[in-house]
Amino acid sequence: MPKSPEADSRRLQMADIARLAGVSTSTVSRALAGSKLISEETRSRVMELARSLNYSINIGAQNLRMKQNRTVGVVVPYDPATRQHLSDPFFLSMLGSLADALTEQGFDMLVSRVDAGTLDAAATPFDTGRVIGIVLIGQWRHHDQLNQLAARHVPIVVWGAQLPQQLYCTVGGDNLAGGELAGAHLLAQGRKRIAFFGDINLPEIGQRYQGLCQALTAAGIAADPALLVPASFVPNGGRLAVDELLARKAPFDAVFAGSDLMAMDAINALRQHGLDVPGQVAVLGYDDIPLASYFHPPLTTVRQPMQEAGRALVAALLELAEGGVAPSVQLPTQLIIRSSTV
Amino acid sequence: MPKSPEADSRRLQMADIARLAGVSTSTVSRALAGSKLISEETRSRVMELARSLNYSINIGAQNLRMKQNRTVGVVVPYDPATRQHLSDPFFLSMLGSLADALTEQGFDMLVSRVDAGTLDAAATPFDTGRVIGIVLIGQWRHHDQLNQLAARHVPIVVWGAQLPQQLYCTVGGDNLAGGELAGAHLLAQGRKRIAFFGDINLPEIGQRYQGLCQALTAAGIAADPALLVPASFVPNGGRLAVDELLARKAPFDAVFAGSDLMAMDAINALRQHGLDVPGQVAVLGYDDIPLASYFHPPLTTVRQPMQEAGRALVAALLELAEGGVAPSVQLPTQLIIRSSTV
Repeated sequence: MPKSPEADSRRLQMADIARLAGVSTSTVSRALAGSKLISEETRSRVMELARSLNYSINIGAQNLRMKQNRTVGVVVPYDPATRQHLSDPFFLSMLGSLADALTEQGFDMLVSRVDAGTLDAAATPFDTGRVIGIVLIGQWRHHDQLNQLAARHVPIVVWGAQLPQQLYCTVGGDNLAGGELAGAHLLAQGRKRIAFFGDINLPEIGQRYQGLCQALTAAGIAADPALLVPASFVPNGGRLAVDELLARKAPFDAVFAGSDLMAMDAINALRQHGLDVPGQVAVLGYDDIPLASYFHPPLTTVRQPMQEAGRALVAALLELAEGGVAPSVQLPTQLIIRSSTV
Repeated sequence: MPKSPEADSRRLQMADIARLAGVSTSTVSRALAGSKLISEETRSRVMELARSLNYSINIGAQNLRMKQNRTVGVVVPYDPATRQHLSDPFFLSMLGSLADALTEQGFDMLVSRVDAGTLDAAATPFDTGRVIGIVLIGQWRHHDQLNQLAARHVPIVVWGAQLPQQLYCTVGGDNLAGGELAGAHLLAQGRKRIAFFGDINLPEIGQRYQGLCQALTAAGIAADPALLVPASFVPNGGRLAVDELLARKAPFDAVFAGSDLMAMDAINALRQHGLDVPGQVAVLGYDDIPLASYFHPPLTTVRQPMQEAGRALVAALLELAEGGVAPSVQLPTQLIIRSSTV
């Protein structure tokens, strides 16, 4: 049976390394296999030579085959309107989860930020052969741009909500169910005037609000537009929303905030206005970032499945990068009840 | 007359070739000069190595010059002994700080994990021209391996402690001063039997312990070896250290832990043993991760300058990648007093 071209190329490379290192091919073979029979000094020389040779041999064909490119791109669009830093706890948790999932699979992670206004730049690391595909965190209002990327066969998986007419693959929490869980919990605590803080034009936030409205409807309560307060993920977004809500003079006994940070910021603002949490106002967040359980009072929230998120995003992307089909995934969310609502 | 930088670089390159070929630098020098004293086989190996090394050494500079590579590598060694995930809050804070600093400069970040046992692999993204240099988080016990990387001209900046005979550039907190601040604070609270939790073989941890000992000495108290408890960064490292300390039956009235997570884990363990914090045992951490201020009780700790860390690491690396000199940097640390000690 003839040898495969790959086996041939491997043999030639070992012979080259052996010649340059002045050792036998069997020594190279043992060193590359990590054998204890080879001295550390020889192993180190062989590894260094293997790397530089590998590079010069593959320089033309680099990145053409997935076997030689073990890098996945992670893009976090930079939205001038929200100015979220990567130091934001939600992004950091997601990055950590992705990094751990990629490490498990032997992949590196190329993190880049892209101006949300020119989102097609997200594909640059793929177009230039640096990554085998892209995980994008921050669906925001980019549905059409993401569809364009998918249409030109960029392997891309987006953390976010499933939407109609969607060509790209999403992995996300079940935001509708999350919103409904939150609403049902607040109603069960006897709250009837539930304010919602968030930008419902963002798909995930819109679905959370829709879930709240479903819970209200099931309890025979009409959603009051005066209690829907636009709020963004700026550092003091929760405080600004509290100010806006108080200015409206509409009575309220609960706040459901679009993120944990926004909820914590809102709690601090409510207290400064002399309102007791949860006595006068129950406050509920979203995400369950690590801080949530340590806050005063500990925060009731809807948990996003962070550990599962990294693995599911990576699994879907590898499927796409290998030419397969990856259906969108909705991960279950969970209500975590703590002292900010009960 | 001082040697020119070019002569210096040629000399270092010869040392690299000698190392890889397993011969002396004088043999390399003679071979390159075409001396008849060198065998044809050796001369041929040396010439081939000189060509390939020259090539790989110039990739980084060339990329930077052509402004075609705007990527910095971030390597977090994976130590099978501690099994720290990237989801660890300290690493995540550092990644966020680096990502924000790199975004400010228009750079992408290639995150890879490397088995700590084969740390030379940290240079692979540079050797293959994918990054202009490496930021390494996790000095651990890798001083010699890091020196080897620096000796072969890999632009590398390491988060960690400054050590004697150091060829690589470090950016880190002032661990000695941090340890001294912690010790002086506990002594000022009337504590005299201060246990230390950590692996003092790790340079940063060793310097923190040394700082504590200096504070004790200044107060006329001898450090008691029974109060030095080895502890690692595993998730239950603080608990294991508490168990070990209690088993030793040595009286103690304070714990200075090598990290905030370790301190929080220790507080939970002390409480389960019926000990009041800070009443019976004052506990002090290190890092000031965001959780520290939200913990019950809020944690007294030594703050590492995270925001400054990212900027300082990136500034030093860009200097090195452009062929400049980057002296090691020690950033000031700060004692943050909260309820776990007072």
